[in-house]
Amino acid sequence: MQPQDTRPRARDIGLRIGQLPTGPNNTITDVAGVRVGQTTLIEGDGPLRPGRGPVRTGVTVVLPHPGNLYRDKVPAAIHVINGFGKCMGQEQVDELGTLESPIALTGTMNVGLVTDAIVAWSIRENPDIGIDAATVNPVVGECSDAWLNDMQGRHVREEHVFQAIESAAAGPVEEGAVGAGAGMTAFGYKGGIGASSRVTPSHLGGWTVGVLVLANYGRRDQLRIDGVPVGQMLATAEDVPERGSIMMIVATDAPLLDRGLRRLARRAGIGLARTGSIAGNGSGDYVIAFSAAPAVRVPYEPPTPTLPVELLIDTGAPIDALFQATVEATEEAIVNALFRATTVTGRDGNTREALPIERVTELLRAAGRLVEGE
Amino acid sequence: MQPQDTRPRARDIGLRIGQLPTGPNNTITDVAGVRVGQTTLIEGDGPLRPGRGPVRTGVTVVLPHPGNLYRDKVPAAIHVINGFGKCMGQEQVDELGTLESPIALTGTMNVGLVTDAIVAWSIRENPDIGIDAATVNPVVGECSDAWLNDMQGRHVREEHVFQAIESAAAGPVEEGAVGAGAGMTAFGYKGGIGASSRVTPSHLGGWTVGVLVLANYGRRDQLRIDGVPVGQMLATAEDVPERGSIMMIVATDAPLLDRGLRRLARRAGIGLARTGSIAGNGSGDYVIAFSAAPAVRVPYEPPTPTLPVELLIDTGAPIDALFQATVEATEEAIVNALFRATTVTGRDGNTREALPIERVTELLRAAGRLVEGE
Amino acid sequence: MQPQDTRPRARDIGLRIGQLPTGPNNTITDVAGVRVGQTTLIEGDGPLRPGRGPVRTGVTVVLPHPGNLYRDKVPAAIHVINGFGKCMGQEQVDELGTLESPIALTGTMNVGLVTDAIVAWSIRENPDIGIDAATVNPVVGECSDAWLNDMQGRHVREEHVFQAIESAAAGPVEEGAVGAGAGMTAFGYKGGIGASSRVTPSHLGGWTVGVLVLANYGRRDQLRIDGVPVGQMLATAEDVPERGSIMMIVATDAPLLDRGLRRLARRAGIGLARTGSIAGNGSGDYVIAFSAAPAVRVPYEPPTPTLPVELLIDTGAPIDALFQATVEATEEAIVNALFRATTVTGRDGNTREALPIERVTELLRAAGRLVEGE
Amino acid sequence: MQPQDTRPRARDIGLRIGQLPTGPNNTITDVAGVRVGQTTLIEGDGPLRPGRGPVRTGVTVVLPHPGNLYRDKVPAAIHVINGFGKCMGQEQVDELGTLESPIALTGTMNVGLVTDAIVAWSIRENPDIGIDAATVNPVVGECSDAWLNDMQGRHVREEHVFQAIESAAAGPVEEGAVGAGAGMTAFGYKGGIGASSRVTPSHLGGWTVGVLVLANYGRRDQLRIDGVPVGQMLATAEDVPERGSIMMIVATDAPLLDRGLRRLARRAGIGLARTGSIAGNGSGDYVIAFSAAPAVRVPYEPPTPTLPVELLIDTGAPIDALFQATVEATEEAIVNALFRATTVTGRDGNTREALPIERVTELLRAAGRLVEGE
Repeated sequence: MQPQDTRPRARDIGLRIGQLPTGPNNTITDVAGVRVGQTTLIEGDGPLRPGRGPVRTGVTVVLPHPGNLYRDKVPAAIHVINGFGKCMGQEQVDELGTLESPIALTGTMNVGLVTDAIVAWSIRENPDIGIDAATVNPVVGECSDAWLNDMQGRHVREEHVFQAIESAAAGPVEEGAVGAGAGMTAFGYKGGIGASSRVTPSHLGGWTVGVLVLANYGRRDQLRIDGVPVGQMLATAEDVPERGSIMMIVATDAPLLDRGLRRLARRAGIGLARTGSIAGNGSGDYVIAFSAAPAVRVPYEPPTPTLPVELLIDTGAPIDALFQATVEATEEAIVNALFRATTVTGRDGNTREALPIERVTELLRAAGRLVEGE
Repeated sequence: MQPQDTRPRARDIGLRIGQLPTGPNNTITDVAGVRVGQTTLIEGDGPLRPGRGPVRTGVTVVLPHPGNLYRDKVPAAIHVINGFGKCMGQEQVDELGTLESPIALTGTMNVGLVTDAIVAWSIRENPDIGIDAATVNPVVGECSDAWLNDMQGRHVREEHVFQAIESAAAGPVEEGAVGAGAGMTAFGYKGGIGASSRVTPSHLGGWTVGVLVLANYGRRDQLRIDGVPVGQMLATAEDVPERGSIMMIVATDAPLLDRGLRRLARRAGIGLARTGSIAGNGSGDYVIAFSAAPAVRVPYEPPTPTLPVELLIDTGAPIDALFQATVEATEEAIVNALFRATTVTGRDGNTREALPIERVTELLRAAGRLVEGE
Repeated sequence: MQPQDTRPRARDIGLRIGQLPTGPNNTITDVAGVRVGQTTLIEGDGPLRPGRGPVRTGVTVVLPHPGNLYRDKVPAAIHVINGFGKCMGQEQVDELGTLESPIALTGTMNVGLVTDAIVAWSIRENPDIGIDAATVNPVVGECSDAWLNDMQGRHVREEHVFQAIESAAAGPVEEGAVGAGAGMTAFGYKGGIGASSRVTPSHLGGWTVGVLVLANYGRRDQLRIDGVPVGQMLATAEDVPERGSIMMIVATDAPLLDRGLRRLARRAGIGLARTGSIAGNGSGDYVIAFSAAPAVRVPYEPPTPTLPVELLIDTGAPIDALFQATVEATEEAIVNALFRATTVTGRDGNTREALPIERVTELLRAAGRLVEGE
Repeated sequence: MQPQDTRPRARDIGLRIGQLPTGPNNTITDVAGVRVGQTTLIEGDGPLRPGRGPVRTGVTVVLPHPGNLYRDKVPAAIHVINGFGKCMGQEQVDELGTLESPIALTGTMNVGLVTDAIVAWSIRENPDIGIDAATVNPVVGECSDAWLNDMQGRHVREEHVFQAIESAAAGPVEEGAVGAGAGMTAFGYKGGIGASSRVTPSHLGGWTVGVLVLANYGRRDQLRIDGVPVGQMLATAEDVPERGSIMMIVATDAPLLDRGLRRLARRAGIGLARTGSIAGNGSGDYVIAFSAAPAVRVPYEPPTPTLPVELLIDTGAPIDALFQATVEATEEAIVNALFRATTVTGRDGNTREALPIERVTELLRAAGRLVEGE
């Protein structure tokens, strides 16, 4: 593939979005226990042969903790900003406030097969599912990679999902045109996977918020980076209306339950807004938030009707710091997706250029937004 | 299969649930344009071999009108009573207020593959989906057929969904252990598909409400038929806690948009309540409502920004009559599912007995609930 | 007033709604700490003089615990079945999951003044409100007493609210045409305040659910008591469409937070459905649920960011028992409102007859629903 | 009062937020038929005497059309961004999708009395309310003016509300420390009332979106104006945590019903996000959206069950233009509130300084955000 390593992340050029410090890798896996795995499918070139290729798609999975997710569920909430999209499993997360499977992101028309693959994987881990145990609730989000990819082919199959899950790891997360991001477009440039994190002040809990996004939305002229309307300076007459979306995953080690997590999830929408999104009609914008804090896990079969938990009371300064962390990490995750994504040519020779980083750097510097000489 | 034809529907024994008259076939297809198709999968006997059988499952599809559903969408709303379940496509229906695919009902773990099949079918009907046109939003609901069926096998495949859609027809709807209902259980008896309809008084619009349910919930002692607690009279000591659900589909020819349809959908929950349901923790209870009225269709690409529609204003007596129709038709559809379902033996020799109609008839007669000698 | 004491509650005639046992007084105050206070306003007779009388209205308050509600908030949720009505304070309960004031019920057009009175009372208890402390969120629900009362007069004033709060007590709760129930109508009969309770089995927690309703809805022919359609037998040709509503308050000592309480609140709608309601267009139907368990109180200023709580995990049999308790107590609370309410004549000589208990007893006995000789 | 007239609006210094043109007065009344009225209460100085003063509060009303609002309701939706606040009447707007009274904004603890005043005014206009007609659903939003005002005094009384309604007019709207804005604070500066509007391109409908805000939120360091983080440059060490809120009213002449208006309302949150808000825990953030288009009015008593309406189909470019208009007008309305508000000293000598416009102008100019020489 393209030599992604030569492209910087937002911080590498001196951009400092927000005020809170990042976690060690400035990514979602800075939240202890969280792992990310991705399978990227790039195959074929030339004219679209519906159902056969070219292929520019993939799958990205986020696992909330290293144990058995079905047996030890995590508190979760899904917030729908614009529901012109799909998030398999949303209602059960809403009802029970828990997540019991890996979260998978993929291209829109793969959702059925990826859902089925998550079921298959959950059965492998828990052979009693659907026999003596209950069924499982996969959570699968999507964006459309129609412009570069043969979507009708639904090329993400069970083995690709299994491979992504099995390769899931802590540490740095690959960003840009990888995994579910392979065929995505953001603000008329190549989009895809991006991530970032923030840590709240220790006297306010010292918790980490990590965000991973699948960015696939926005018209070029709308793009703002750290408040600077670079999109208007870069826009050309040929820009087309967006038909994209964004999926945002927010992880934290703060001991929040579903209601607090829903509040966090809503703040991801604020980070999104700052990048210039208007949550356009065709943009299905979703946020999936969960707490990886061991103290708030929900066992499959509670040994007693009541269980002791140590909860963050979501009033006052500690929750405001988490809100701010979510806003900042989401904004930066989106910018990282743009910074790291390389140019991709897909079906019918359609090409999405990478964000022109040199030009953008100049614009940000002129607006006084870069910290130089660090 | 079992000789279903010998079992009566609720009305055949003189039961008269509610006050409004039914449509000609007392089923969901009494709403003009609505069609139902079903594929029933019954295969193998004996011990469960996970992934291989025995098979007691299927799929039931409801098509809102005979035209191209993707090109001529219908107003719709989905109401979640208890979200411990899945309804693929719910958020987009919520956001846009429209339905653009057949509605499919099936066993829980088939949802991924059935979703994928609906995508495939939509592409066949609209070869530009995901290329020049937008993607498609399948609506797929589920209940668990774990007790009789090899759920892990996810036996409903593309060809079964296509077959159900292609066989969809107006007129009488097969009820009981058919289609998605093949492996379902209600109130400890064999459950499955049931349907009913009501017509509102002509001075209040004369509209039809048709309901189809996939009934798979309830503990035996909870069952009430037309208010009579027959379940307590039939219950035995061995009764087990429920692990089921119900999916309810409400169709009408009243020209309502999404908000009015959501209000209708909520009233289906009232019909459900009257059968004895407590919306138990494990029961994912959903209502999908749509208007089949041609006057309120939403074209894929409106020729002009605004379009004239003739709407029912949902205040006053006309909407109350539709509410009552929904309550009554839902209650009767559930009772019909129980009346028509025959005894089914599935995996591991597990057997769900059919509702003992003679005994139930006696109990209803004793309570004075039967109209005799008609 | 009318000699209410001569009228029985539902259990007194041998009716046994549901299967779970009641608490000691079969009322909402069976939940430890919960208190109820009521002020009834009956004044004047004859023709309506808008703004001046006759007066048939009042206020009923429910206090979740005997301490300072503002300083020790209780987890709470409000469920809207049909939003054609008002519940002041609903959004904050939704956002924060807590209740910090008495709950007040009253006639529709009194909501503004009663809200103001709750603010005044909260200030008296907490003189720092709106100065050094935050503001307060009163929760005030309503039904329309238009048919008997001079609604335009908004006759419930601050002193009446204070009097209700100050007289609030544990123990038996007066039912029928009292407090907010003074001018209410249910199923064409005199309605008003009713209450009931249930206790779950000790191996499932042994928790109490108490319900108090303000019943003001329903067309006579719709009335069902324990499943028996007595309304159809009692209905007359002059019956008018309903324009009423119902407010339901659900209290429990089970240690649930907002999400679990919202699930409980939804089940109150099932109890309502069983009485024959169709949640008619004009019926604003609301449920306010809270947990009085000391273990889940939320302090105004948490001493540390996280607090230990002992929570009911809402899966499995314990929550199902609470659901059943809610359904049964709600249904019986409504029936008690009808049983206990006496005939009231109000503005313009309008008269609401009390439910004819002898005739109803006969009908229930004929349907085999009474336990005799106890 | 303070000489407001000397302070510019955002456009006067050359700021151009967004890309769409404004309406003639760049305010909410650019939507035909919409009128705004305000009563400002400034009385007393010196130490707070709870219940007596000093008074820095008021009420702002928005009337959707000049006719009888109760008889000719307008489609409406209320979107709750952060529910730590109050919006009387929200649930009925949600259920019925209509607004039937003036919208009133005021200080938090005045909500009860202002609600009562709107009831009184509605009765005066419709003497059959609560007698032969139904009741009325006032919509009243609030923010806290605790820092400058004697909130416990609840100083806004019926006469002040009537006066605001009676003085309501089309044309320019007074901004800043007026009406409900008298005692408000935004980003540590004096906040209050602001307004703006946008017009969509004629080939996309040519509709107007007008926004009015009551801005009372934000920490100084968070303030961003057109993307420039001026707050960080202006912040001082003494900045205190916010305890504020924002109410946003969105009016349009596009013929949208409730669902489309809810989508518009959500986009106001994007404009809010761009000003630097993180929707802090204590900030109750609400959006009330309505359509003033005569073609979609809902009569109190529809002459026939169905009515013809000409609706905007909310797919594609026309709705995206309305989304963009809402985002831009909301952001500018907030900035206008800050620009126009003058320094106010209130209770206990507490002073909120006006935004230092000269310094802000310099900062914006340095960032290249001003259009000069016009």
